[in-house]
Amino acid sequence: MKIHGQPRRSIESDEASVRILDQTLLPHCIEWRDLDSLHDAAEAISTMRVRGAPLIGATAAWGMALAMRESATDAAVQSAHSILYATRPTAVNLRWALDRMQAHLLPLSPPERAARAWQEAARISEEDVRTNYAIGCHGAGLLQSLAQAKAARGGPVHVMTHCNAGWLACVDRGTALAPIYEAHDTGMELHVWVSETRPRGQGAALTAWELREHGVPHTLIADNNAGHLLQRGLVDVCIVGADRVTAAGDAANKIGTYLKALAARANDVPFYVAMPVSTIDWTITDGVREIPIEQRSEREVTHIFGLDGDGVRREVLIAPPNTVARNDAFDVTPASLISGLITERGICAATIDALAALRAAQF
Amino acid sequence: MKIHGQPRRSIESDEASVRILDQTLLPHCIEWRDLDSLHDAAEAISTMRVRGAPLIGATAAWGMALAMRESATDAAVQSAHSILYATRPTAVNLRWALDRMQAHLLPLSPPERAARAWQEAARISEEDVRTNYAIGCHGAGLLQSLAQAKAARGGPVHVMTHCNAGWLACVDRGTALAPIYEAHDTGMELHVWVSETRPRGQGAALTAWELREHGVPHTLIADNNAGHLLQRGLVDVCIVGADRVTAAGDAANKIGTYLKALAARANDVPFYVAMPVSTIDWTITDGVREIPIEQRSEREVTHIFGLDGDGVRREVLIAPPNTVARNDAFDVTPASLISGLITERGICAATIDALAALRAAQF
Repeated sequence: MKIHGQPRRSIESDEASVRILDQTLLPHCIEWRDLDSLHDAAEAISTMRVRGAPLIGATAAWGMALAMRESATDAAVQSAHSILYATRPTAVNLRWALDRMQAHLLPLSPPERAARAWQEAARISEEDVRTNYAIGCHGAGLLQSLAQAKAARGGPVHVMTHCNAGWLACVDRGTALAPIYEAHDTGMELHVWVSETRPRGQGAALTAWELREHGVPHTLIADNNAGHLLQRGLVDVCIVGADRVTAAGDAANKIGTYLKALAARANDVPFYVAMPVSTIDWTITDGVREIPIEQRSEREVTHIFGLDGDGVRREVLIAPPNTVARNDAFDVTPASLISGLITERGICAATIDALAALRAAQF
Repeated sequence: MKIHGQPRRSIESDEASVRILDQTLLPHCIEWRDLDSLHDAAEAISTMRVRGAPLIGATAAWGMALAMRESATDAAVQSAHSILYATRPTAVNLRWALDRMQAHLLPLSPPERAARAWQEAARISEEDVRTNYAIGCHGAGLLQSLAQAKAARGGPVHVMTHCNAGWLACVDRGTALAPIYEAHDTGMELHVWVSETRPRGQGAALTAWELREHGVPHTLIADNNAGHLLQRGLVDVCIVGADRVTAAGDAANKIGTYLKALAARANDVPFYVAMPVSTIDWTITDGVREIPIEQRSEREVTHIFGLDGDGVRREVLIAPPNTVARNDAFDVTPASLISGLITERGICAATIDALAALRAAQF
């Protein structure tokens, strides 16, 4: 993807260094930040300077690589795994990337580990980009079918998304937004409904910014507006990302996703989840009972960041002082509400059998 | 209701003057504002210094009374009606109050009109208060039944509401919050989930403030969090207000209400609409097709007001500059999702037959 026309990635590296775009400052400040240590990587994940399941996974891999430069003992490998694993509980890509790094590193002799960890983290990043382009191709086919189905009526295909599952949630290209970029790049007429995504506003701050940088027409709405647009026939398809998908197809994603899925179903609008296969947690089937939901700070609900009239970034209080708040970061959409899962291997039904077949196709 | 322990109303009057609490400044500033003219009343409604269907109706009645002090001709009556009617399109109580004032005034001789308009506006305000206490009694009975049903499990009755349908939405007491105040005042253990209600944040700014002033335990959530709480069994009942209800029971209310109703239904949680009978528009049955939905400024979506760290009230931008936004102020919840309508005459099923019976009981 590009920022002001320059090709960039959400996390970038060379032989010696790793840097991230600090997403807590977007869309008002574009600030790159070096990650120099395991601590820096863990802090970037837990404070959400980087966020989005695939990018959390890639950053954790780089965190393991940075840790190996400090110490490459078996204990250091295991300790880095534990520290990074504790940063965010819901996204399964985090565990996937850490397990992969650990499995790769432990059989090696400690002196080899730093260099090989660096290569493996780079490989995970590259694979993420390829995966997302594949998700984009499969999803673009879906959008093409929708465009053909409404060709007689004319007008763009209206896609609703939630939160940010774009290139900022990945190393590049995105998951839910990858089909949109792919279709847009091939000339399809599209329009995206961008849901603000309170409390942290990733739709307003990140998705609106990404789509603008890429030139995709879009309209920002309050999260509350989604049901009305679906009811009035103004949405052709919903595509969201996921932080963890069970072996039966239940999907944990940013809080509010479930409400959109209910409204899509009530109004016969297809609802898709786009994610890499690494987002699937094969060890569980019941998302509502088995996926841990991260609780975040009350302050994210009672306060909000924005740019004041003087161009200064400020945090303002929007409720009475000391109001008690609850902040579940994710919710679970049952598989029964999901029309399909858009993965790098194709579009898969959200059922235990279809997912088992997808898994078998891996080997 | 009370502010800092002093009994107050949202709109107050004596023989000579009318004043309102400016709700655009809450919860951070408590500022009363005199309405001295028809223009002041119309401006207060359209800028949402006063809001909430019953309070819009009462303020419009006072606007007619203020207009009669300027000119009391037939043309002045009709012109005041038109000006006030144009302020907000969705709430039917506005038209109800204006029609009632006009029908009351036109048969009178112009010299009588100013004094009699003042009396009639005061009567509408008093009736609103009595109506809301009656809604509170009927709704409290419902909460009592829920408390008994969960007595074995213990703990408070958890009520979810949306936007503000409290005393700030009325002259006093509230519609959706009236049952909560009534039950709380009689000693029932309650807890209220307060949904922020973007874009204007009436839940965070008004409902949280009202409940705190009254001492009712409550927790603020982002609108997106409602589905998750309903799915996890943390809500016993939803009660919301309405701006217009059709003769078949469809309810237009603040944008986002429909999403809560869908999630309540999906999780077998009862969903009630509390409103005076004057909120029913007997001329229509199909809410989705026939209720006009007000479109408000894009700025309400892209910007937000709050208190900065220095205690200064500021507006901040939360999206990239010049982002296009859409802002539907209301949505329509179909009658099929509504468990019942809590009115001053009792709790009524959301069906055309039950509503017809309720209407007949009026005479």
